[in-house]
Amino acid sequence: MKMIRSVEASAYVGEEVRLQGWLHNLRRLGGVNFIVLRDGWGMLQAVTENEADLAPLAGLSLESVIAVTGQVVASEQAAAGVELHRPQIEVITPITETPPVTLNKRTMKESLPVLLDHAVIANRHPARQAIFRLAAGVMAGFRATLAARHFTEVQTPKLVASATESGANVFELGYFGRSAYLAQSPQFYKQIMVGVFERVFEVGPVFRAEAHDTTRHTNEYVSLDVEFGFIENHFTVMALLRKVIAGILAHLAENYGPDLALLQARMPVVPETIPHIHFAEAQELILQLHGADVRGEPDLSPQDERWLGEWAEREYGSDFLFVTGYPMVKRPFYTHPDPANPQYSNSFDLLFRGTELVTGGQRLHIYQEYLDALAKAQLPVEPFATYLEAFRYGMPPHGGFAIGLERLLMQLLGLPNLRLTTLFPRDMTRLTP
Amino acid sequence: MKMIRSVEASAYVGEEVRLQGWLHNLRRLGGVNFIVLRDGWGMLQAVTENEADLAPLAGLSLESVIAVTGQVVASEQAAAGVELHRPQIEVITPITETPPVTLNKRTMKESLPVLLDHAVIANRHPARQAIFRLAAGVMAGFRATLAARHFTEVQTPKLVASATESGANVFELGYFGRSAYLAQSPQFYKQIMVGVFERVFEVGPVFRAEAHDTTRHTNEYVSLDVEFGFIENHFTVMALLRKVIAGILAHLAENYGPDLALLQARMPVVPETIPHIHFAEAQELILQLHGADVRGEPDLSPQDERWLGEWAEREYGSDFLFVTGYPMVKRPFYTHPDPANPQYSNSFDLLFRGTELVTGGQRLHIYQEYLDALAKAQLPVEPFATYLEAFRYGMPPHGGFAIGLERLLMQLLGLPNLRLTTLFPRDMTRLTP
Repeated sequence: MKMIRSVEASAYVGEEVRLQGWLHNLRRLGGVNFIVLRDGWGMLQAVTENEADLAPLAGLSLESVIAVTGQVVASEQAAAGVELHRPQIEVITPITETPPVTLNKRTMKESLPVLLDHAVIANRHPARQAIFRLAAGVMAGFRATLAARHFTEVQTPKLVASATESGANVFELGYFGRSAYLAQSPQFYKQIMVGVFERVFEVGPVFRAEAHDTTRHTNEYVSLDVEFGFIENHFTVMALLRKVIAGILAHLAENYGPDLALLQARMPVVPETIPHIHFAEAQELILQLHGADVRGEPDLSPQDERWLGEWAEREYGSDFLFVTGYPMVKRPFYTHPDPANPQYSNSFDLLFRGTELVTGGQRLHIYQEYLDALAKAQLPVEPFATYLEAFRYGMPPHGGFAIGLERLLMQLLGLPNLRLTTLFPRDMTRLTP
Repeated sequence: MKMIRSVEASAYVGEEVRLQGWLHNLRRLGGVNFIVLRDGWGMLQAVTENEADLAPLAGLSLESVIAVTGQVVASEQAAAGVELHRPQIEVITPITETPPVTLNKRTMKESLPVLLDHAVIANRHPARQAIFRLAAGVMAGFRATLAARHFTEVQTPKLVASATESGANVFELGYFGRSAYLAQSPQFYKQIMVGVFERVFEVGPVFRAEAHDTTRHTNEYVSLDVEFGFIENHFTVMALLRKVIAGILAHLAENYGPDLALLQARMPVVPETIPHIHFAEAQELILQLHGADVRGEPDLSPQDERWLGEWAEREYGSDFLFVTGYPMVKRPFYTHPDPANPQYSNSFDLLFRGTELVTGGQRLHIYQEYLDALAKAQLPVEPFATYLEAFRYGMPPHGGFAIGLERLLMQLLGLPNLRLTTLFPRDMTRLTP
């Protein structure tokens, strides 16, 4: 007896097979009974007109764990193109309580708080499974694209000694009689590792203690980080980012077609060259097109980003737009200034459909420039001493970027809340499940 | 002009190429000068008898960042089999201070504290680079082996609401007016995710607040976690673990030959079936062979493990040995007992060369059994409520294991201290670099 996964069934037409999974649905329609089994990869329905075949399920609820043996038969009615006939059902884990959320309808009707309270069960819904399979796909596509370019994966510490990068927004904890902090990003460590491997990436959790309550933020998320050396300037970084985004999307399209279809993902085309506009020009453009004078503002507002996204779509047919040269005043101390115009930076944001998706840029790489930048920012040198050692003993021009895994999924799938892309989200009020 | 990486040079014999990297070494031997460039992947030497070629390096220290252009020439003397002739050197980042550790000798002579204090620079040493390339290789081999078996990668939260798994050894932090804890392991979440994807794995940091100061522990490390459903018992888990270990080692052997050679790794053979011995039999064997009566002890001591490792080597020619059936009293509450002998468990340790490398086993999967186990352990139900929801609404028999990335590397490479396998280790006294 061949044991198969639901998604393999169409390769076994005519054969007896065995599947294991959860009792996803049970329908009785005028003498015909449909048993839908869900496993870790999809669903398959079994059909029988013989009531006796259902006897093992008497008194049991959906989500009981079962095995079904039967013959694979081609069927135009069945979603999978095949179904099981003459099913023999065996109960592995009987369940008698009704699950707290409804898993067997196409969409979940529960409110967001209910869905998140019961994420342990809600994440079993096929549409939720699909989101998290895509999350795995994004990570795999990210890694494959970078490994092919000779990047080395690193794992840097999440417990750090000082709230260096930006003091206010870090979680503090007791660490053997002193304080430690949770890393807001692997920024310093990925730069240090450019001194070791030139090209590095990391996939890992980052922690933000910001007291925000928005649809687009959580306090713990997965960051896809890249940093590499021997760049010319931030345009070298933007060129790599374009390849990484294209690589991720190609990996999804190639391996996750059914999930993308189920979630009605609107897959963007990544132009050979993503259009770019300088921050100052972007502000002029907004004045011209919309009459809003935001010149002199040190950052773009969400409305500004939407207008720029619309413009890129209209002008270039592109879902993506780079905004370059953000004012130095809004960027962290390690940011490399624009040599020709030092109040602007060699940094960028990547807008995707009018919302910021990625931030990146060129970093300082000369030791003395770090000392000057810290002095200018009125920051002490001592907490940065080990970080600065990298620059003191030889670093090439370098830069990088960070993609928020959940942000990418949210925007790709057009979801209304970032929490929907996170298995078990963490926000100001939520630490469980 | 072709820009190449050091390790590609042998493919360009006769051609002009350009390389970028760090000035790793500079030797003047009787009118012949050797310039060794190190990049993110290896080293290449350039040779010149013309002193003027070295002019750009006047007054500079090792670790200056440079580019070298020259002709690739086959050479029996050169470690790489090729070297660069007629080099033109360009300085990218000049360095004038002497690095705090010596990078250009075959082995590092610095004491462990000095090496760790200056890990930012010390990790540039070719032998240190090799260790961390292997770390990336272990992760890649782990993921590839599991992806081929249809496991889904997950990222579970590191901030958790209660110090559930074992109260004493967790880090506590302030979280918007209440307490949160750092996850000691993804144990509960990976089990929950078996209810979603059946087969899951995770690569991520785990945090242990244990006040230990040993050569084999740190307080933050990278855990390679696996959990999967529809197993028969712990032997199903052991069979998968054998494949995962073999997959990792094969991936290393195939892709990291030079690093393994440099580090003189003694690669083990993984037997088709790894020998196994029951905990009680192991204690009897120790009495027979060594006269030490450890029967009745609830756990194996390091000496016991060494004796068992020697026995497995002698008896089976195997570097690996499974010890099964550890007493329930020493295992966590979710451990599945041996149905035939319930004071023992369906769990195992994998010993590698006489030291524990992996712990795993079968877990409980019936809701009522969890309630009973918590009651027996005198633990309250409430902090486990969301975890228990998974079992309340249908879980298959399941199990899994966790491999410590650094532990695996330490034992594979025969290193004396786990800290040597960690980029920036965290222990009771060390939070920097």
